[in-house]
Amino acid sequence: MAGQVIGVDVGASKVAVATLRAGALGRPTVEPTSTAGPEALMDEIAGAVAAVRTGDTEAVGVGIPAVLEFSTGRVKWSANARLEDVELRVLLEERLGVPVFVDNDANCAALAEAHDDAEPDVRDLVMLTVGTGIGGGLVLGGRVYRGHTGAAGELGHTLVGALLEHGAPAAGRFPQAGSLEALAAGRALDALAEAAARAEPGSALAARLAESGRVTGRDAVDAALAGDAAARRLVALVGERLGVGIANAINTFDPEVVAVGGGVSAAGELLLGPARDSARRFVVPGVGERTVIRVSRYGADAGVRGAALLARQEL
Amino acid sequence: MAGQVIGVDVGASKVAVATLRAGALGRPTVEPTSTAGPEALMDEIAGAVAAVRTGDTEAVGVGIPAVLEFSTGRVKWSANARLEDVELRVLLEERLGVPVFVDNDANCAALAEAHDDAEPDVRDLVMLTVGTGIGGGLVLGGRVYRGHTGAAGELGHTLVGALLEHGAPAAGRFPQAGSLEALAAGRALDALAEAAARAEPGSALAARLAESGRVTGRDAVDAALAGDAAARRLVALVGERLGVGIANAINTFDPEVVAVGGGVSAAGELLLGPARDSARRFVVPGVGERTVIRVSRYGADAGVRGAALLARQEL
Repeated sequence: MAGQVIGVDVGASKVAVATLRAGALGRPTVEPTSTAGPEALMDEIAGAVAAVRTGDTEAVGVGIPAVLEFSTGRVKWSANARLEDVELRVLLEERLGVPVFVDNDANCAALAEAHDDAEPDVRDLVMLTVGTGIGGGLVLGGRVYRGHTGAAGELGHTLVGALLEHGAPAAGRFPQAGSLEALAAGRALDALAEAAARAEPGSALAARLAESGRVTGRDAVDAALAGDAAARRLVALVGERLGVGIANAINTFDPEVVAVGGGVSAAGELLLGPARDSARRFVVPGVGERTVIRVSRYGADAGVRGAALLARQEL
Repeated sequence: MAGQVIGVDVGASKVAVATLRAGALGRPTVEPTSTAGPEALMDEIAGAVAAVRTGDTEAVGVGIPAVLEFSTGRVKWSANARLEDVELRVLLEERLGVPVFVDNDANCAALAEAHDDAEPDVRDLVMLTVGTGIGGGLVLGGRVYRGHTGAAGELGHTLVGALLEHGAPAAGRFPQAGSLEALAAGRALDALAEAAARAEPGSALAARLAESGRVTGRDAVDAALAGDAAARRLVALVGERLGVGIANAINTFDPEVVAVGGGVSAAGELLLGPARDSARRFVVPGVGERTVIRVSRYGADAGVRGAALLARQEL
């Protein structure tokens, strides 16, 4: 317990690395994610770890947006196709010479949200990371829940708006139409923002489109935070849809906390208010009576902090 | 470990009671559920327990289709409104003078499905009881998962076909339109059977309607098992919809087993085949690679066996 652990958060665009010692997270170092293949990415991770490593480093935890086999850290499915079938944990352990643990990034974020040195751990927590896609992480009974093969928690891919009668979705295409991710992630907000910009030429979003040639969900969040009514309606619509996923999570887990993180959660109560309202409508009476729905406590640092906590918990 | 435990399965229409000794379930006694209120129901349970009780009875487990507070057995929400706010566990313990444990009936069934003396326990199992409604039960990490207040596992009320844009559902009405229960439970099959009987005057279901003045999901299951093609299509449609809920359960839990019980599961592979096909389509690559989707091992006895196991596990 004397030493430090190191957390690594491998995102689609950035790799963040930070130390955790006696509950205090060091300032993360951040660099662009190498996209030149598994070897280059592992070199990058090893280099960033070496830069903050001390003699008393006990273990390294790595969070990555992928479906994994936990024991080997083998990537079974990832948006970054070049990582597939790579045994990240095994290979990084060989390079680093300390124990390495690799887990889904939303599982790591869930662990961070459930743990705070200043208060008792949250035993049952559902994490939704709403960024480009939607990741899910589960802490149940105080531990990360990974299921039978390590791949549990893919809440973004659960279907909330699917009706088979409306036509069968394309096999093997994810996110599926009707999934929570297809309806309520950053990509959905991108599409709503662009449609609104084209439909309302005098709007703030239209100005943004004219200025830069494109308009994104991030622009909608910024405009909503700046007070633009049209942008607020888009964020609220995504919040309402997210609320359906939150209701499903509450009906399923009756958790103590549902934490919402990821880039879209920067909208704060503009997103969470409508999400809470729609969630409450769909929750069965008697379920979730003490569930708190809140924005991620650690924001952008939840992933790297959780990766470090993973190393500490699994050691 | 020398004594016996007693399981009680309180259904909407029947109360089943059986002993469990050294892994062997006695033949259940079954009587109609008293509907004259909580006192009469508790009298009935106490009487049925007394009839099979021996001097070495260690505890009684009770399963009931309700949202419960586990510690007191208080009914928080139930289709049988007269039980609401009744502290079943506390009151039954006073009457019986042995430890009593009360849990949701689908949780009990899940426990039975996860446990077989002849083989290792299933650690991660999702139970769906498809009867008039759809109940959900979770065994995670080898234990019943109940969440923060004891009300987890309401999988029938998760939304799989909801789109808020299609109009807001009525507040406080369950099952909600678009929920798994509204789409794939016995009541949905009832409606499909009646519509088919009226649309196809020459069909087996139409004959049934002419004969008895009504046609139900049970008739559709019977006709499907007897080989009627139209009835098979209805069962398959419900199976496909159920498969969406199963896909969500797999994406969420990556379980070892999804067990399907309840009256509609009497259709066996006519239901499970289409359910498996649609589930596989919606499961994220890498998730659920070893998940088995099967019909309940204990059929109509799962609830009473699980209630007895609950008493054994909680003692």
